[in-house]
Amino acid sequence: MTTDSYAPTTRTAPTRLRERVAYDRDLVHAALDEAVLCHVAFVDDGAPVVLPQLHVRVGEVLYLHGSTGARAMRGSLVDGLDVCVTVTHLDGLVLARSAFHHSANYRCVVAHGKAHLVTDPTEKDEALRHLVDAIVPGRSDHVRGPSRRELAATAVLRLDLEEVSYKSRAGAPGDDEEDLDLPWWAGVLPLRQSVPQAPVPAPDLTSGIEVPAHVTGWSRG
Amino acid sequence: MTTDSYAPTTRTAPTRLRERVAYDRDLVHAALDEAVLCHVAFVDDGAPVVLPQLHVRVGEVLYLHGSTGARAMRGSLVDGLDVCVTVTHLDGLVLARSAFHHSANYRCVVAHGKAHLVTDPTEKDEALRHLVDAIVPGRSDHVRGPSRRELAATAVLRLDLEEVSYKSRAGAPGDDEEDLDLPWWAGVLPLRQSVPQAPVPAPDLTSGIEVPAHVTGWSRG
Repeated sequence: MTTDSYAPTTRTAPTRLRERVAYDRDLVHAALDEAVLCHVAFVDDGAPVVLPQLHVRVGEVLYLHGSTGARAMRGSLVDGLDVCVTVTHLDGLVLARSAFHHSANYRCVVAHGKAHLVTDPTEKDEALRHLVDAIVPGRSDHVRGPSRRELAATAVLRLDLEEVSYKSRAGAPGDDEEDLDLPWWAGVLPLRQSVPQAPVPAPDLTSGIEVPAHVTGWSRG
Repeated sequence: MTTDSYAPTTRTAPTRLRERVAYDRDLVHAALDEAVLCHVAFVDDGAPVVLPQLHVRVGEVLYLHGSTGARAMRGSLVDGLDVCVTVTHLDGLVLARSAFHHSANYRCVVAHGKAHLVTDPTEKDEALRHLVDAIVPGRSDHVRGPSRRELAATAVLRLDLEEVSYKSRAGAPGDDEEDLDLPWWAGVLPLRQSVPQAPVPAPDLTSGIEVPAHVTGWSRG
């Protein structure tokens, strides 16, 4: 049965700043969905490796995308590869009166688990369609879908969202009482991520094709 | 002797798409310096963990910042912890005529090595000053510097930049010849990251302190 929260485990339990950690599925889902990319860590020959990957969440499954030739995906051919997937939103710079209390406002999801290669053609096809629509909502109706050969050349990893935590910081700097009268400006500089700029048509685009609404209307966060 | 490039190793050599990989120090430095945060992976009890951290590059050294209580930093107390530090800039969404050729424009730095806890007080003090100024240039002259107690509560990890690679994609979609006449718009939607919004003064800010130029003029990328 699905509850509203993920159950904390030894490695998702907070080691400090308890108040910043949560396990709510809503918070986790929103942060995963807002991100265009995630960072995927795995162990290769005993050493850690972390690489960026595109992802899409479908319910309680996170699909990761890559080429079958990519390092992370080759590793995955060992079925059940241990991964840690992290998504981070940098929401602002926290400028305190003391150097020590400088910080960042952020939202971060960390998911642990075993990644499995998606082998079922239908699940793979659907995952890739979801991926295209996660990155650009509405896009999958305006492209040529994958051929059998292209599907074979694309690796999709599946991570079930079970061991997941959410960590965040928001709001004003937390200066010490005795620093409040210092003559320094303190506050937050909010940041926006992934702000779209003017679309750049492909140089070989057939003339007369206008920029579609799913591109001009794209936004995140 | 320092050369203009990092020497490729087994794990930084490309496994595919060779043309996207580089080892130029200039490219690596610029991408590290533009990023406010990085993702640090390490192995904890045999499993991978990746967490966001603030960083600053000083020459060929990357300093990572955290609390002494944080999981990544506790691990680091084992001197010489293997880490992988990755910085990713998402520069744009690449929208091709085929789903298969959808991609992202990005710049990504991956650095491997052993992280060491900075114990020398002078190096630590300087690293933290560099860190504040890396995040907000000019800020370190407008704050109260760290006390001895605060310095002790702050952990700084040092990673020498030796095994480093740079990977990127830029430019238009790479559609297949036979798809060029399809009736779908193709091109790139450029994205800007960390776009500053209006500064938010701390609620308890002493009245009369104006937002300083190092805040109003902040920009990245």
